[in-house]
Amino acid sequence: MLVVQKFGGTSVGDLDRIQNVANRVSTTKKDGNDVVVVVSAMSGETNKLVGYAEHFSKNPSRAEMDMLLSSGERVTASLLSIALGEMGHDVVAMTGRKAGIVTDNSHTKARIEEINPQAMHDALNDGKIVVVAGFQGVNASGDITTLGRGGSDLSAVAIAGALKADLCEIYTDVSGIYTTDPRIEPKAKKLESISYDEMLELASLGAKVLQNRSVEMAKKLNVNLVTRTSFSNEEGTLITKEENIMEAPLVSGIALDRNQARISLMGVKDRPGIASDIFNKLATAEVNVDMIIQNKAHDGATNIDFTVPVSELKDAKSVVDSFVQSGDIDADSYNEDICKVSVVGVGMKSHAGVAARAFLTMADNNININMISTSEIKVSMMIDEKYAELAVRSLHDAYELEK
Amino acid sequence: MLVVQKFGGTSVGDLDRIQNVANRVSTTKKDGNDVVVVVSAMSGETNKLVGYAEHFSKNPSRAEMDMLLSSGERVTASLLSIALGEMGHDVVAMTGRKAGIVTDNSHTKARIEEINPQAMHDALNDGKIVVVAGFQGVNASGDITTLGRGGSDLSAVAIAGALKADLCEIYTDVSGIYTTDPRIEPKAKKLESISYDEMLELASLGAKVLQNRSVEMAKKLNVNLVTRTSFSNEEGTLITKEENIMEAPLVSGIALDRNQARISLMGVKDRPGIASDIFNKLATAEVNVDMIIQNKAHDGATNIDFTVPVSELKDAKSVVDSFVQSGDIDADSYNEDICKVSVVGVGMKSHAGVAARAFLTMADNNININMISTSEIKVSMMIDEKYAELAVRSLHDAYELEK
Repeated sequence: MLVVQKFGGTSVGDLDRIQNVANRVSTTKKDGNDVVVVVSAMSGETNKLVGYAEHFSKNPSRAEMDMLLSSGERVTASLLSIALGEMGHDVVAMTGRKAGIVTDNSHTKARIEEINPQAMHDALNDGKIVVVAGFQGVNASGDITTLGRGGSDLSAVAIAGALKADLCEIYTDVSGIYTTDPRIEPKAKKLESISYDEMLELASLGAKVLQNRSVEMAKKLNVNLVTRTSFSNEEGTLITKEENIMEAPLVSGIALDRNQARISLMGVKDRPGIASDIFNKLATAEVNVDMIIQNKAHDGATNIDFTVPVSELKDAKSVVDSFVQSGDIDADSYNEDICKVSVVGVGMKSHAGVAARAFLTMADNNININMISTSEIKVSMMIDEKYAELAVRSLHDAYELEK
Repeated sequence: MLVVQKFGGTSVGDLDRIQNVANRVSTTKKDGNDVVVVVSAMSGETNKLVGYAEHFSKNPSRAEMDMLLSSGERVTASLLSIALGEMGHDVVAMTGRKAGIVTDNSHTKARIEEINPQAMHDALNDGKIVVVAGFQGVNASGDITTLGRGGSDLSAVAIAGALKADLCEIYTDVSGIYTTDPRIEPKAKKLESISYDEMLELASLGAKVLQNRSVEMAKKLNVNLVTRTSFSNEEGTLITKEENIMEAPLVSGIALDRNQARISLMGVKDRPGIASDIFNKLATAEVNVDMIIQNKAHDGATNIDFTVPVSELKDAKSVVDSFVQSGDIDADSYNEDICKVSVVGVGMKSHAGVAARAFLTMADNNININMISTSEIKVSMMIDEKYAELAVRSLHDAYELEK
């Protein structure tokens, strides 16, 4: 089997942990697998280097930042290779360039355009373990680029895709994907497997294990992803095609997103195109609007309610204020004490009544639902934040996820 | 003028010092010069990384060591570029690869084979300051290599040669080349200029400012080298062709080398080829023999005395012992309490009596000379170590070097 194993910053946080990683990789190799390892910088290193750069400039050149930051992953890759060499393995460390990772020219947030896996293929054919510095590539001019947040995961998935690896294991400090946050519902169960689409919904709803960029690429390249912990031998969670999951449960998980704010616009003027005006201006300001409700009050005035991430509230306010000042809106109000609780499951596609059960559960617990949004595999409800834990636990119970 | 400026580890030892370097480079640029800067890793970084590697292996793979160690210079180059960018300069940071430095395949001690300066030329033509990560290049396969000890100096000299720079300034923590070690003779004077050959003699005799590799390359490429300090604006010492030095003094400096040991072989058997046998075996054991004296004692037995660096004494002993065991030598003895004091000056070529004055000075001070070796521009005398300072000061006086 060809396995790509990716180890994040905490997994390679110090020399002893790097040795642990070497032991794990060694075992995988000795079990008869071909192994490509992708590593992040030792935890803290990237922040240290960013701090250094910020000592000199609040707005450092992005090409220079890439040359600076890419060094962290190279150090880890070299050290891990040395450790594996000492254990008797044939091993080669590769930079992003050597691994053939070609990106566009967007320094500090480059997109992978192509992988030329010849050097990796050659090394694997020679029986070598390949250790790749994650997070980095080169643009068409040969300059170093980095992939931005979660970039090493992305390196691993892209490499797994290019090599048609059987498995891409992402090692982090959490042991997999749970039916919900175990800090809220101790009965939360780790999932054996979950579909790409469910994972994407869960990730965008606050499950922080994997970034959507990586899951999307895994889906596109048909890479079997596993998230697991490097601190134990516990099995992780397989993220794969829906067809690969034998008996998909109705609901896979309950997600909670506390980082939402509600914006209420009262007395929106009744002229054509005003709503599209408002939401276009918000999009231009790079505000991500999530749920939207529009209704006509009894007095004939139109009200619009919508939610945005708390971090974008300030930008959203300044857009909205301009409409208030121009008289297009009578008044606005803001509420950060809300949250979004979501039920995610591919089973919804084929089973009616999943959403209804969610609403019923809220009603049974006297939780008022302020907004609802649904997709093919998800029902999201905006509720007052004080009910967050109650809602999560009740839904977890209602769908019998502890089983 | 096109200037290459190289800053060593202590000159870029922390963020404030990197800012100082940026200020100095900025001034050079603003004075109307084109500038290429070559930087070392921040002091301590390389040792830290070596320590990390040694945690995993006593004998780490050299290719991986190169990938590991080359990261230190990249960090400095990026940070310095960011600092210069913040000061309003157009600047580009380059790795060894980008700067076109191609080496042979000897990882961790590669030799520069070729420099393709196109990228540097282009950047300079665009008015940019070029900041190059020193100490590194790539081999023909495109793998990262490093140049070994003093490698950043070598990068700077090679770049200056390839670009036909007017000047190559090597910034260290000492302010230039002195007529002798100022800790021994406080009247020692900094030299304005010195020839390549004199510098080579002084360096091999213990003056630690520049490694011979760099001076040799400067001589070969006809690069005007200046060594100076980054901690003040004091002028440094120009190292250049003999013809460029207007009025060369008779003697440029007095060097002292304490790291010599004397080996005495008594009763060497009188058979043809025995001496060449001994010195061949020493060469095979990579022992660098310096001075040699052979004489016949009154009783007809042959004695051979020679000196080796103290660090190679152990290896030398085991070679010599094998000859004692085989009966080719009657006895051997060792003396580490010796030193070599040398008078260096191109003026010797054309002036008689320079060596004689050295011997006379020793005699005047009752210092016994054990061995003598001479070259066209140097007289070296092996003496008891207790006379080291007296000899240096007396010679410094005798040649009036304080003037």
